[in-house]
Amino acid sequence: MDMDVWKIEREGYEPENTADNGNRFLIGNGSIGVRGTLEEYKKDRMVAVNLAGIYDRAPNQTWREPINAPNGFYATLEGQGNILKHKQSLYFRHGIHSRETVYEQAVLKIERFCSMAEPHILCQRIHVELTGKPAKPMKLICGIDSDVWDINGPHLTDFEATAGEILHVSALTSEMRIPITVKERCNRGQDEILVSGDSVFRVFNVRENFVIERIIAVNGELTPGSYDEKLAEHSAFWDNLWDSSAVKITGDPVAQLSLNYSLYHLHSIAPRHAESRSIPARGLSGQTYKGAVFWDAEIFLMPFFTMTEPSLARKFMMYRIDSISGALSKAAGLGYNGAYFPWESQDGGTEGCTNFNVVDVFTDRPVRTYFRDGQIHISGDIVYALGKYIDWTGDTGILDKGGRDLIKACADFYLSRAHRLVKNDTLEFLDVVGPDEYHERVHNNAFTNRIAAYTLGRAGYDFDVRQPRIRDGIIEQFDGYFDLEDVSLDVIRSRIKHPKEYWGTQNGVAYATQIIKQADVLALMQLFANEYSDEEVRRNWEYYEPRTEHGSSLSACMYALGACRFGRADLAYPLFMKSARSDLDGGGKSWAGNIYIGGTHPAAAGGAYMIATQGFAGLRYNGDELVLNPTLPESIDSLDFPFIFRGKRAYARVSRERSEIRMG
Amino acid sequence: MDMDVWKIEREGYEPENTADNGNRFLIGNGSIGVRGTLEEYKKDRMVAVNLAGIYDRAPNQTWREPINAPNGFYATLEGQGNILKHKQSLYFRHGIHSRETVYEQAVLKIERFCSMAEPHILCQRIHVELTGKPAKPMKLICGIDSDVWDINGPHLTDFEATAGEILHVSALTSEMRIPITVKERCNRGQDEILVSGDSVFRVFNVRENFVIERIIAVNGELTPGSYDEKLAEHSAFWDNLWDSSAVKITGDPVAQLSLNYSLYHLHSIAPRHAESRSIPARGLSGQTYKGAVFWDAEIFLMPFFTMTEPSLARKFMMYRIDSISGALSKAAGLGYNGAYFPWESQDGGTEGCTNFNVVDVFTDRPVRTYFRDGQIHISGDIVYALGKYIDWTGDTGILDKGGRDLIKACADFYLSRAHRLVKNDTLEFLDVVGPDEYHERVHNNAFTNRIAAYTLGRAGYDFDVRQPRIRDGIIEQFDGYFDLEDVSLDVIRSRIKHPKEYWGTQNGVAYATQIIKQADVLALMQLFANEYSDEEVRRNWEYYEPRTEHGSSLSACMYALGACRFGRADLAYPLFMKSARSDLDGGGKSWAGNIYIGGTHPAAAGGAYMIATQGFAGLRYNGDELVLNPTLPESIDSLDFPFIFRGKRAYARVSRERSEIRMG
Repeated sequence: MDMDVWKIEREGYEPENTADNGNRFLIGNGSIGVRGTLEEYKKDRMVAVNLAGIYDRAPNQTWREPINAPNGFYATLEGQGNILKHKQSLYFRHGIHSRETVYEQAVLKIERFCSMAEPHILCQRIHVELTGKPAKPMKLICGIDSDVWDINGPHLTDFEATAGEILHVSALTSEMRIPITVKERCNRGQDEILVSGDSVFRVFNVRENFVIERIIAVNGELTPGSYDEKLAEHSAFWDNLWDSSAVKITGDPVAQLSLNYSLYHLHSIAPRHAESRSIPARGLSGQTYKGAVFWDAEIFLMPFFTMTEPSLARKFMMYRIDSISGALSKAAGLGYNGAYFPWESQDGGTEGCTNFNVVDVFTDRPVRTYFRDGQIHISGDIVYALGKYIDWTGDTGILDKGGRDLIKACADFYLSRAHRLVKNDTLEFLDVVGPDEYHERVHNNAFTNRIAAYTLGRAGYDFDVRQPRIRDGIIEQFDGYFDLEDVSLDVIRSRIKHPKEYWGTQNGVAYATQIIKQADVLALMQLFANEYSDEEVRRNWEYYEPRTEHGSSLSACMYALGACRFGRADLAYPLFMKSARSDLDGGGKSWAGNIYIGGTHPAAAGGAYMIATQGFAGLRYNGDELVLNPTLPESIDSLDFPFIFRGKRAYARVSRERSEIRMG
Repeated sequence: MDMDVWKIEREGYEPENTADNGNRFLIGNGSIGVRGTLEEYKKDRMVAVNLAGIYDRAPNQTWREPINAPNGFYATLEGQGNILKHKQSLYFRHGIHSRETVYEQAVLKIERFCSMAEPHILCQRIHVELTGKPAKPMKLICGIDSDVWDINGPHLTDFEATAGEILHVSALTSEMRIPITVKERCNRGQDEILVSGDSVFRVFNVRENFVIERIIAVNGELTPGSYDEKLAEHSAFWDNLWDSSAVKITGDPVAQLSLNYSLYHLHSIAPRHAESRSIPARGLSGQTYKGAVFWDAEIFLMPFFTMTEPSLARKFMMYRIDSISGALSKAAGLGYNGAYFPWESQDGGTEGCTNFNVVDVFTDRPVRTYFRDGQIHISGDIVYALGKYIDWTGDTGILDKGGRDLIKACADFYLSRAHRLVKNDTLEFLDVVGPDEYHERVHNNAFTNRIAAYTLGRAGYDFDVRQPRIRDGIIEQFDGYFDLEDVSLDVIRSRIKHPKEYWGTQNGVAYATQIIKQADVLALMQLFANEYSDEEVRRNWEYYEPRTEHGSSLSACMYALGACRFGRADLAYPLFMKSARSDLDGGGKSWAGNIYIGGTHPAAAGGAYMIATQGFAGLRYNGDELVLNPTLPESIDSLDFPFIFRGKRAYARVSRERSEIRMG
């Protein structure tokens, strides 16, 4: 039997895998993300109905983070006996989450989805099949549970829980008093209503097999229509998305499944229902990283949306354009001109990144970090993505909508941040943090300097920016990098004294060595691919890869793209799988010091798309025309994918025999 | 009875105070320093016969440090019974160390000194007085003990120990194979000779009271003359020194004793017997700080020698001039022009400071620190001291002896190290460490910028250097200092998790706060006293003093001088006493992380002299003339001191009634 490349399944009841399964089985529709937790779970199992674009500050906290709504999907059985068998699955072609649990007395099947057609609607069908003869009547309890996960919460206050024909829980966020409402209707009358604290439930006495269907509205009104009607609309929406975005792989069903799964995640969290919004680094999987938007959006997610749904890519850019005030005030606050975009951008473009982003596991004290002040490449990343977006789509109109001002403001920021030596006028960028965050406060990070130069050029300024030192063809990541201790990852690991210790900062194991967190020079070589020969990429790849921890999900993609440049699909393939399966396989880095950083990894998913299309298929726009330079892995016979270039539908097809781009 | 202001004494046998007593009772003659340990002590009690100017690397170490010679002062009794009473004393007018121990069967008195007249000669007189009737004969064992203290040693190898009429131990240093010899003659024949490993001893059977006198030569030949003859020459030498340097205080014998004691230390370690040599930060008290010369020499020690013995001050400067090759190669190694003097200067001006100067107590891992690369003020400190030396002495001849080249080379270094913004040509100094080492990698440290500007000016260059931000009259120590957490020392102390943890580096308790290790802005205001009004000094003093840990012995002096500026001798007085009594009272900071940093504190002694003469008496050369602006503490009635200005002997006398400077 052929492998189902649209479905994942996991057998066995495994509450110990709550964190990974919550990410693995996530469903969402861009407005709401629901972690893949089981219906009977409470907050200790990280249940979250994560709301896009709503940020609020919990009492006694100094930053904002996204809100989790009360959980309308809550459901549990009573009197069902022990678990005999359990299965959780996700049909990700249509974003449908299912669970099937065989108890001693009953089989419980629940199916749920976040409607793509109606961004505030969640739907659930519960099926109970009696298999035994319970001593006392079995009960199904389902409703709206307010006992949801909060990393730093609780965020909600002033709860009201009522039950009439519909269940209704309302609350306010604690800082800005934004109303949060959850309403639920059910196609069947309950036996009793249970109001417990801030939560409200229907209780059904289960005497025979039955099915109920529940429609839940979060921050909006309930709409008419049955579960099946809503499922049909929802599924049609998904089918359309796949028609315009799926990459068809022949010869390697595991790769096909993994890439489908990656694109599923991207679609599930795409901001379709907002005018200007982007995607947080952990998607809609919870409050990690304060729900903030990082450079991931521009560098790792934009390529997918630019190629398959440019109107969405435009929203990413409009988010930055509309939130430029945050960037202007961040720059001003630090004494600079122009726009310094937040490293962790929240609602309205406010900086969510604090100056103390790591807690030392040895002293339990927060440590001053420089991600906020030092990662100046972020402004250039945005200009770069905007430039690439315009080059690809031809949408120069965005320049008049604020794009031009953004480019100018970012260039002005760089000019005020730059320094020159006495002996010449070349610009240097000192005390920065490049993509490799293990080395803070470095000078002339090659990636940063290049992207600043790009920004200045795009703004029409004429300045020289310091070139990196090159040794035997290897670009020095920053001034003095080659002088650092050159030591293997194994040795570094042998120096670790605490399993959760952070590798960066002055006291960290990587700080004074050449070990880096993630692609940095290799990222430079990908973003400015035309400037480096395949041979240069190879030499730098071979130097830097063994020195890279890949401690970020952004790393593998850049190395895979690099390996494709010099014809080593065999090196790229495992990195492709690592990127595509990041949330499927789980087990990634979930801690930085004592701070939880787990959740889904959209950038890795976006990276998998880049590897497939730009790496394996080798699709590139060289300024004049689209070209394909394929480097197919052994297991993959062909790749087919649609995309949109300059407003026109196109199809790329790559196989061992031939490569072609077909327009229209 | 009047207090003896030339002697200290301590009763009770206290091996637990070995470290402090070793510093407190140190004797030396500029060539050799002998820690104030008892004659029977071995290496576990930190016995050291420290040799000035000889540096060598121990096996398996990466840096050089000074050598301890075999201990010719070793002596112990056998069969003497338990200790009944014990006293250790130092007559520091003549640098004579004494111990008197009453045992059950005998009283042991030993006196010793390092000859000021003969820099390689040590003298010892041992007196045994029988008080009981021992069951078996008592033995006195004395000789040359090679079992001496080494922090990172052993340094010596290839020992030969022989005994004829004289005892003789020779050895080689392990790296450079420098010969080290110790010879001893005694005025009385022994009963037997004991050779034990690398050591050699005389054994005397003690049947009646007796005295022996021992003359020891370190790295030189034994000279004729009895103990008493040598003592007379030695004492005369000291008397001369005091005639030309002592500060006479009336009204406050404790202050008098403490200041005498400070000057004693300075004289004991002054490099009288070398052409160009300076004084290490821990004098001749051991191997701490690798025996290296710091800015202490120029900023805290030079004033004393410039005023009282300018030929010695000149040696300090010649040390820097003669060792400029080390500064040139340090600068070149870091990619700069000119002369970047070592932060920890060893023989030949090689940099002794490593990039890993702190060991983290929590992880036991070395931490990358920036003292070596960042304390660029050192080059300016040297130029400043040279400038002050010339201004005071009139010795412009030193400019032709290399002084001019040194100034130019330091200025060239600063020019290559400086940066400018795009918008103007003002020089900035980025990524530096100021005097306050708890804040590494800061930008535009006010002290550093000013001393760099001084250097450029002295070299005849015309550049603007960035001025510090000033808030309500307070000079910002470096860019962004005012934005740091403003917190009390008590709060900082409450955050400490380990008694030996280092306060600086990114994970340290002071790093992200306004708490500073030592005077920084206040040092600036002292070095450039003419540029700040008394009121400006007052405001900055009141801001910075409560935020200063005084974690360095260099700190109190600057604050005391500042307090004198605005008439608060009551604030200056305890800081004067703290400086003057630093090694007398002991108990100072002996650990930075896991690294031992104890020893004597010559800079504090030099600071005490500065407070007395420049602070209390208010002696200053304003460019035109010498002036006195006294601020006498309540307890002090008058101050009298000789000095030399422009080659002429002068005397200052300050009392409540009148102040005068008398020439000749």
